[in-house]
Amino acid sequence: MKASGDKMHKHKILDSIYSPEDLKNLNTTELIQLSQEIRQFLLDNVSKTGGHLASNLGVVELTLAMHYVFNSPFDKIIWDVGHQTYVHKIITGRKELFGTLRQYNGLSGFPKPCESIHDIFVTGHSSTSISAALGIARARDLKKETYNVVAVIGDGALTGGMAFEALNDTGQSRTNIMVVLNDNQMSISQNVGALAAYLSKLRSNPRYTWLKREMDSVLRRIPRIGAYFADLIEKFKNSFKYLVISGMLFEQMGFTYIGPIDGHNMPALIDVMKRAARIGGPVLIHVITKKGKDYFFAEEKPELFHGVPPFNVETGEVYGADEETYSNAFGKHLAEMANRDPRVVAITAAMPDGTGLMEFKERFPERFFDVGIAEQHAVTMAAGLASNGFRPYVAIYSTFLQRAYDQILHDVCIQKLPVVFAVDRAGIVGEDGETHQGIFDISYLRHIPNMTLLAPKNIEELKHMLDYSLTMEGPVAIRYPKGNTGVDNLITKSPMNSLKWEIIVEGTDCCIISFGRMLSTAVQTAHILKKEGIKACVINARVLKPLDHRMLNDMASRINRWITLEDSLIQGGFGSSISEFVTAYRLPVTIINLGINDSFVPHGSVERILKELKLDPNNVAFTVKKFLCDFVKGRYVSY
Amino acid sequence: MKASGDKMHKHKILDSIYSPEDLKNLNTTELIQLSQEIRQFLLDNVSKTGGHLASNLGVVELTLAMHYVFNSPFDKIIWDVGHQTYVHKIITGRKELFGTLRQYNGLSGFPKPCESIHDIFVTGHSSTSISAALGIARARDLKKETYNVVAVIGDGALTGGMAFEALNDTGQSRTNIMVVLNDNQMSISQNVGALAAYLSKLRSNPRYTWLKREMDSVLRRIPRIGAYFADLIEKFKNSFKYLVISGMLFEQMGFTYIGPIDGHNMPALIDVMKRAARIGGPVLIHVITKKGKDYFFAEEKPELFHGVPPFNVETGEVYGADEETYSNAFGKHLAEMANRDPRVVAITAAMPDGTGLMEFKERFPERFFDVGIAEQHAVTMAAGLASNGFRPYVAIYSTFLQRAYDQILHDVCIQKLPVVFAVDRAGIVGEDGETHQGIFDISYLRHIPNMTLLAPKNIEELKHMLDYSLTMEGPVAIRYPKGNTGVDNLITKSPMNSLKWEIIVEGTDCCIISFGRMLSTAVQTAHILKKEGIKACVINARVLKPLDHRMLNDMASRINRWITLEDSLIQGGFGSSISEFVTAYRLPVTIINLGINDSFVPHGSVERILKELKLDPNNVAFTVKKFLCDFVKGRYVSY
Repeated sequence: MKASGDKMHKHKILDSIYSPEDLKNLNTTELIQLSQEIRQFLLDNVSKTGGHLASNLGVVELTLAMHYVFNSPFDKIIWDVGHQTYVHKIITGRKELFGTLRQYNGLSGFPKPCESIHDIFVTGHSSTSISAALGIARARDLKKETYNVVAVIGDGALTGGMAFEALNDTGQSRTNIMVVLNDNQMSISQNVGALAAYLSKLRSNPRYTWLKREMDSVLRRIPRIGAYFADLIEKFKNSFKYLVISGMLFEQMGFTYIGPIDGHNMPALIDVMKRAARIGGPVLIHVITKKGKDYFFAEEKPELFHGVPPFNVETGEVYGADEETYSNAFGKHLAEMANRDPRVVAITAAMPDGTGLMEFKERFPERFFDVGIAEQHAVTMAAGLASNGFRPYVAIYSTFLQRAYDQILHDVCIQKLPVVFAVDRAGIVGEDGETHQGIFDISYLRHIPNMTLLAPKNIEELKHMLDYSLTMEGPVAIRYPKGNTGVDNLITKSPMNSLKWEIIVEGTDCCIISFGRMLSTAVQTAHILKKEGIKACVINARVLKPLDHRMLNDMASRINRWITLEDSLIQGGFGSSISEFVTAYRLPVTIINLGINDSFVPHGSVERILKELKLDPNNVAFTVKKFLCDFVKGRYVSY
Repeated sequence: MKASGDKMHKHKILDSIYSPEDLKNLNTTELIQLSQEIRQFLLDNVSKTGGHLASNLGVVELTLAMHYVFNSPFDKIIWDVGHQTYVHKIITGRKELFGTLRQYNGLSGFPKPCESIHDIFVTGHSSTSISAALGIARARDLKKETYNVVAVIGDGALTGGMAFEALNDTGQSRTNIMVVLNDNQMSISQNVGALAAYLSKLRSNPRYTWLKREMDSVLRRIPRIGAYFADLIEKFKNSFKYLVISGMLFEQMGFTYIGPIDGHNMPALIDVMKRAARIGGPVLIHVITKKGKDYFFAEEKPELFHGVPPFNVETGEVYGADEETYSNAFGKHLAEMANRDPRVVAITAAMPDGTGLMEFKERFPERFFDVGIAEQHAVTMAAGLASNGFRPYVAIYSTFLQRAYDQILHDVCIQKLPVVFAVDRAGIVGEDGETHQGIFDISYLRHIPNMTLLAPKNIEELKHMLDYSLTMEGPVAIRYPKGNTGVDNLITKSPMNSLKWEIIVEGTDCCIISFGRMLSTAVQTAHILKKEGIKACVINARVLKPLDHRMLNDMASRINRWITLEDSLIQGGFGSSISEFVTAYRLPVTIINLGINDSFVPHGSVERILKELKLDPNNVAFTVKKFLCDFVKGRYVSY
């Protein structure tokens, strides 16, 4: 694949594709040509905007074949973990928008029904597609309508329990539904578990190997293909009946299993889809694809090119990759802790890279557990380890930990087990949008009894908190943002050897209570206010639960105008807990809660989103001034 | 089995059992005799205290065989959905406590490490045992210890996705771990899904049928058994090797599958357990049991005797069974709605009886979906139905809905789909204790954007809310308590045709804001206060989200002392939302939040628990008086 210069490539066929309908006029050769053009298009665009590259390079032929065979949106295609829908978006009239991918008000990186009638269902988290498809299919049956409903799910997503729940229900439903298992032999990182081993066994089926070899050799001759290709399609069609081999596990779940199929073989895919659509009841098509297909660097390091910032196409160099992040610092420090303390074990749900645990994995393989995309099991398994003397650190993104809410409550907190949750990607994460913002964790964690909830203001404090967590008796969650938000300049005034807060900036006119990433905003706000003669005190509320009662009571006796500042939900969140506290102790203070007010947060850069939410220093300073001004005018002093 | 009179039965062998050690001295005949004594003991006790009967009658032999073969607590036995642990409790030194079963400060109905060293892990919710066992086994391996770790899980619990996640991880782990699949051919209600069909196929294996027939005929001759029995054991042992037949699905997941075994055949169970313990790696033993075994009424109607109130042993008559409950009223009314509106569909997660949906199921079988113990799938499948034009009503208990938190947020609320959650068993549920109290749902639901959260004060209002929910555009959750708490006497002042609150009692001195079951307590409190000259206003805050802004603002201009009253968690709950509101609008009011303060709530009767929490009318009245008195003394007026 050719590297991109400054100008975009011309795409002969792609330029004429405005809807899936336009695919129907193409012949197989043209479809194959189109798939190459789309790969170039993806590289050209994602290298500039950043985004999910490897998975999309893997599903080019699959997406084209599906849209060639099915009639979207009449037929409904539901994409699991929707970051694999770039190709789908390109051919459903949105290719002109790719320059705005993942930017505020731009094209979303995930399917969105409000963006296109071809996007049937919002999918951001893993393993939801079969459930959604079954619901849609059942609705179709009740309405006595007829069309195909297809769920496309990765092998990684299939390890998620709810996918199994859905297979179990679907298998017995007798509903016409098609599950396309996009088996790229890894989820985001290398795949794990018995299911992966089973799929691997299926893949090694000699018939598949034969087919792949044959077809590969054909593909290499493209576009000099001519009549030979047509012959081969015929040959393939004849051999199709042998392809319906036994995928016992899926057959036993009530599915007709077809596969495995080479997911980069366009004619094979088209043929299989057509035939599968004629089979009644639940059908599972097992398609083998390669993540990062045809882009050398992405094939080599698909993890790196999973969700990638802008990069140099020619060198594969990812911009800003060497930056120290909270995740890396966490992983590095945890490995040191594990070196000191044999009780320390690490658990991840298919995210060893993303959570920074690769060093830990290499140094302490026997104390490292990657359970696959299985957050529920990860948490309860950790509880088991903790109940038998260990100190499990469970590293999961804030948004994905939502799936283990019940296990945190029921299996960890009721028993007060010393499991530490490393809640990565907390707060605004930016470009992934609604489905991935880590803005709920305070609201869903802080109300659980026995939970201690911490948020470091910088990487140094994260390390202190990790050390401190090892001394604690019950469950702890430490939440920290994506990347490194550059607040290392904040000096730690007091070490983390208790659950106390610290005053970062002294002041007398008002008190800004903040934590984590937003503490930097609070300090900047105080600087702005200072120029206008307002002395704002800034508190690092690094312990979100339990609150520092002493400091809050002391503060109430000195300053009666408080501002809470967070980049997460106010409702049930930190601001809410301060309101609860003021209510409970009837403190003579007036508060404003700044944060996200009862709404989902769309995609865009973190900076832009914070500005839109009026949570940047200038906006916060403006709000605080208005708040204080109201006081002076006596509007609220009357109380 | 004989009916119980007033006096308890004498138990020759059971009386000498104080720990599992005592089992080791018994021969097979005595173990079989013991199992009959335990069944009688269970009937005698549970008929008086209420509790989980059918499942425990089903696992008598299994529990004895396990404790005979393994050495608890050295070997670790983890019981899934711990309500099946009565037999385990009886033989681990707690039989004398059974008169206090499920009562406040009495014996818990679930395993509790604080109650006995034989209780390894708290299990209340379904499908957690394999995860916990794997964690415990991995800890064992890291410590280089050797003992057996055994998870006992029902076929119903196996439909829960996290059990699959755990199987997937365990299958590849090569860890020595034993999973005993207690297959009683139903979870709580009749089993559903492809897995059930698969297990049914395994059960019909001729070898099992033969074994069951042979053994059954033997069991019928007990206790006149003599030498013949010994011969048969020998015969069975020889046939054992043939029993290791292929349970392909489990084998493909990496387990050694053994079964199926007759779970009421003591010698077979003992033999299999012994042999299985010698096999390395993950082993799954498939045991067939009968729920309600040997008690006619429970065998006939295991659903009725799942979690049962006190009952008449001779007639099988359950006391108070005819009472109208919220669940029944919900189910009945929903069926009427379905009759009027073809878009109405009902979804349950293995609880058609408990949620009152049996009539709906019978009248509209094609619009009724029982997905098994699979709350996550239930919610996302509902989202799929809603996205395709239907109006799904998802009936799940408050505590179990915790498991679908992510799906509610990610699959329903982001897309603002009109799914209605019938949140049954909300608030204090009583006897099931910590793991089952419905005290978190307000905290985990009300902060989710786009969610409307309702709580009826009585059954009449529940019906109004159901009707109203059908007119709404987005997600709605209606939470209501277990049973019928007798608040039908509260007159509905205004119909439910908007999201407005209503004033139930007029007053000027203070304002009690409550809802649902606790509204009755609020009214009683107002009556008590009236006698002392205090006029308390009582508000029915039937819409928990969004709050009735107009009424709150009006109220703030009239009354500045507010009391929120709920039988759920204050943190992030309703009280918290009122504090948030007062903060946001800087209302000149002082509040006390009454409810559950940052703690789990143990088992006991609802009435007793409410009293212990000081949430009964007398205690609330006392607290309110003190609150008002503080005001008069000027302690807080200074503000």
